[in-house]
Parts: sequence; C-alpha cells; structure tokens
Amino acid sequence: MKPLLLTLGEPAGIGPDCVIRAYKDHPESFDHIIIVAPAIWLQQRAKQIGLQTEIREFVTLSTAEQSSTTGLKCWNPLTPDVKVSPVTMGKTSQTTAAAVINCIQTAAETCLSNQAAGLITGPIEKAVLRSAGFKFPGHTEFLAHISRKPDATAATDFVMMLASASLRVALLTTHLAIKDVPHALSIQLTIDCIRIVHHDLKQRFGIKQPRLALCGLNPHAGEQGHFGREEIDILNPAVEVARQEGIEITDAIPADTAFSASNRHHFDAIICCYHDQALIPIKAISFGESVNITLGLPFIRTSVDHGTALDLVGSEDVSYSSLMEAIHMAKLMAQKTLS
Amino acid sequence: MKPLLLTLGEPAGIGPDCVIRAYKDHPESFDHIIIVAPAIWLQQRAKQIGLQTEIREFVTLSTAEQSSTTGLKCWNPLTPDVKVSPVTMGKTSQTTAAAVINCIQTAAETCLSNQAAGLITGPIEKAVLRSAGFKFPGHTEFLAHISRKPDATAATDFVMMLASASLRVALLTTHLAIKDVPHALSIQLTIDCIRIVHHDLKQRFGIKQPRLALCGLNPHAGEQGHFGREEIDILNPAVEVARQEGIEITDAIPADTAFSASNRHHFDAIICCYHDQALIPIKAISFGESVNITLGLPFIRTSVDHGTALDLVGSEDVSYSSLMEAIHMAKLMAQKTLS
Repeated sequence: MKPLLLTLGEPAGIGPDCVIRAYKDHPESFDHIIIVAPAIWLQQRAKQIGLQTEIREFVTLSTAEQSSTTGLKCWNPLTPDVKVSPVTMGKTSQTTAAAVINCIQTAAETCLSNQAAGLITGPIEKAVLRSAGFKFPGHTEFLAHISRKPDATAATDFVMMLASASLRVALLTTHLAIKDVPHALSIQLTIDCIRIVHHDLKQRFGIKQPRLALCGLNPHAGEQGHFGREEIDILNPAVEVARQEGIEITDAIPADTAFSASNRHHFDAIICCYHDQALIPIKAISFGESVNITLGLPFIRTSVDHGTALDLVGSEDVSYSSLMEAIHMAKLMAQKTLS
Repeated sequence: MKPLLLTLGEPAGIGPDCVIRAYKDHPESFDHIIIVAPAIWLQQRAKQIGLQTEIREFVTLSTAEQSSTTGLKCWNPLTPDVKVSPVTMGKTSQTTAAAVINCIQTAAETCLSNQAAGLITGPIEKAVLRSAGFKFPGHTEFLAHISRKPDATAATDFVMMLASASLRVALLTTHLAIKDVPHALSIQLTIDCIRIVHHDLKQRFGIKQPRLALCGLNPHAGEQGHFGREEIDILNPAVEVARQEGIEITDAIPADTAFSASNRHHFDAIICCYHDQALIPIKAISFGESVNITLGLPFIRTSVDHGTALDLVGSEDVSYSSLMEAIHMAKLMAQKTLS
C-alpha cells in the first residue's frame, strides 16, 4: 500500500494538537501515514502540551516510507529558501504562510505523481495564507488547480462530499449566498457533478452500480413548476443525460423526502443543490463526525471538518475525532480504490 | 374540555379512510372529537372498505357534544342549499367543493366563537376547491383569513410549525421558490414570526420561558457577510428587537449547527428561513410522523402532513399515523393552553 500524506494546516492552530493526541491514543492508525511538515512543528507542540511523543524527520518521502522506526514520521519537503519560523501556540503569523502552502502543494504533487495514495488535510487559516499570495477560497480549489489539466473544459472538475457511516452527500454549489445559488446552477454543472460522484463511488468506494438521488432546489422540488422552474429547466434535463450514460439516478426529488428516515438508505449518495441542503441532514443524523471528501481529483483527499480553533490550541478540550475519521476514510478509500 | 373539531378534507381522498381506520384501532382517541362533515361521507367509505363502524350525524354541535352514544360523531353543518353529492372513491369532483369549503369555514368560525378548542384538518385537493372559488394557497391562509381582524397590520399573523416528539421547527417563508426567499424576508416579518412562536409556545405548549434559535439564510450564517448579508441586514436586527421584548433567542446561527445532534435539544423551537431548511431536519430526525401546526391563530390548529393520496383510497396501505399524531398534538395543546 502506498503511503497516505497528512498536512497539518495552520501550525499555530489545533492541527498539531489533533495529530499528537490521536497518535498517543491510537498509534496504529498512523501506519502508512507520512506527515508532510517540518518535524519541529509537532515536536514543539508535543513538548508544550506535555505529551512525550517520538517524532522523526526525514528528508525524502522514500526514506520516511522505508524507515522501520516507531513514532510519527515527518517528511520535511521544504527547500532551504522556505523559512521555518518559530510558531506561537494559538497565534497565527504570516511568517509561516509560505511553508504551509509549500507543504500542501508538495503533498498534492506527490499524490499526482503517484508516489502516494492520497492526502488528509488539517485546517488552514485562509486569511494568513492570502497574505502570502494564496488566491483560492480554500484547500479544495487549490488542490483542483494543482491537479487540473491545461485542456480542462468541464463546468466543474471536483465535487465536495461529506460522508458519515450512514450517509453520503455531494454538493452542486458550496459556499455561496442563497440568492446566488439559482444562477450558479446549470445543466452542465449538474451533469459534471453527477458524473464525478458516480465515477468516484465506483472508483474509490468500490460500489459497482451506485444509486444516486438528486434533490430539487425548491420546496417539493418545485411542484411541477409552481415554486420555481430549476427542476424542469436544469436538474431534470441533466438527469436525462446522465441516465443515457447508464447512471442510476432519481429525478430531482424533494430534499425532505430524499433525507427522510425511510428513503435515504436507498441511495449511495444524495446530490444537493446548496450547502445547507446537504450539511443540515448529515450533521443532524450523524452522531459522530462526518468526513469532508473531495471527489474528482486524481487522488484521494479527505479533510477534517473543523477549523483551526485558535482559542483551543494546547487545551485538553481539543477533540481529534474528526482527524481520526478523515484518516480512516482515506484508508478505506485507498483499500477500495480500483487500480 | 371543549370539543376539538375535525374536518375530512377531500371526501374522495384518504381523509375518510384515515378516520375510519384510526377509530377502529384506537376509538378512545376520538373522545372529545367532533367531525364536521355529512355522516354519509364516512358511512359510505366504511361500507366500501368493509369496516363496520358506528357513525352518527347530529344537526348541531351541542347535540353532538352532549350525546352519550358510542361511535364517531359527525356534526353536519351544511344548510339545505349546499348540495351533498355522491362521492366516488379516489375520484375528485367539483360537485363536492362547496360542501368541503363550507365544513372548514364553519369549523373555523365555531373555534373563533369559542365553542370548540381547536381544529384538526384532513387533506384537501386544492385544484378542486379553486374551481369553487377558493382563492387561498392552502388551509393555513384560509384559516388566517377567516380569523384576521379588520385592522390587522402585521407582516404576518400566522406561522407554520412542524413538531415531532423531539423537535419543533417554525418557518419564516413556506412554499416559495428559493430564488424568491431572500426578497421575501424582512425585519418586520422576522419580528412577527419570532413573537408568534414565542407567544404560542407559552400560551399553547405551557413553556414558561421559551428558548428559540434562528437559522441564518446563508451557509455559515453568511460568515460575517462573506456569503450574503441577510443575517446582518435583516435577521440579527429583528433578533435585537425581540430581545428587548424579553424573548430568549440566538443570533442567526448556521442551520447545520442549530440542528446538529449536540445543539438542537437546547431549543424549544428553531425558526427557519425557508421550507427545506425546516423540513429536511424534522423529516430526517423524526422516525414517526411530524405534525403540522398553525401558530398565531386564535385557536389550536393541527393538520396531517400528507396529501389526499387518491391512488391509495380504499386500500389497506392507508396509514393513519399522521392523523393520530395530529389528534394527539391538538389534545396536548388543548390541555396545555393557558386560559
């Protein structure tokens, strides 16, 4: 099995805490995991929070992989020109921004060149990264940008999915004001999204014939055009195209019906038109954590579903359960991925 | 205890089936319930589905109330000029529309004049009623119209609530295309809705100091205006006014946070900006049925949450569980109502 790479995100945030605490309680979960970061970021935090942890730094991925030492393995990919400044717990600094971006970019490129199976990302502080020229709304768009082929023409080449033990949701639009959602929908976007979800459920989840549901944008899925026409004009025409390609998917159905207790288990994924339509049910139903997954990339990518929680850094209240779920999901997907 | 009135809705739909089947299995639930309809609508259906049922017709509400006979009690309020045409199972007809409207109107007026505690409504077929001059989007608006005082000036005087055993949701807007939702929100509408929910939770649910949550319209409740400004410009200013009146309510918070398993139990009701924001979580979480309740009326009103299901009429597949929940909720509210 190829290694899975893990990035810490913002070094002043709870990313390092989560890794150290999760490793202490569940060291076996870090088999096959290589952290792409200067080891000092973890070593310093471990000391600060009083958890003795073996943390080793390697200068190449292959030496990290081949080493039989115990402890957390860090591959520090930073070239000497990228400064590794000291980190103050809970206090972000622009001086670490370039190193953070560099770690994520190198990790993604390593996945792209097939030396690693996938990437698990810790939480970044976007405002800090922007100060170092980071121009993306978030991780996902940055990874899609790195992965994109020059001749790409699709309306979208990635899809945000959240998955829990009992439910998977995928999003047509993500962080958009509600007033902008109707304009953002198009037949092409819907088709691209359906194709990516269908493909990745087969390719990365081992589901031979995925069963998809598509939620309408409007209440009652518009009730034959009485409350909005996006179902008639955009969503259902996209469904028609998808079906012609052999994809099993519902017409645009009312979202409250799709997610009801008696219906949702019929589907391997439910595709939603906007953020809350997907996030409300998965957070309401999932008592544990849900994992953020990016579909459509040429590699596996999972993510914690929390932010940097600067006010919690160093505290015993830091929960690593989302990180554990992200690691487990990435491992499961790596095992299921068709070669 | 004053009686609760029950209307059958569309006589060709499953309304009569639900009443007959529910009564057969749970006759005690129909104590204090007077059905406002010609008895023939139920007698005929009982015969057709082969369930022998005692069904008696009374010409006034008080004789129905005072009668100590067993069986279902119908008060037929129709004057001789309103024709009671024969009903064909599963086949709607314009010939019964006037009688259906008349039963609902009389039942509402009886509640208004304080002769009954509240109203439980079965499913109507709106298109049929429109043919008889019914100009309302549904029951709720019709009941609000009948109840409205001539000098009413509020942005709204009723609120749709859905309640299950563990969750209550209230809606700022109901059956509206998503593209029209942002324009429909206003500070006044939000204040009126908050006031009605607060008042009725005290008045009709016996909750002394209701704890309310308000969901943002946009993902992450707009994230300080990054994804929409309705939280800043409309919702939070309304919250400020409500708090000055002593109402306990959150700022506009992300809907997925409000409904998460760890948060929702902190609130007696969660107020939502639009249909799916409220209906998705309540249908996802409630394994039984949720009850549709109209707040803000001068009387209790609950409703089944299903339609006329014309294709199921007469079949053993008709489920009466939503009717039972609507009856139980109305009884509970009648007991809790402050006099």
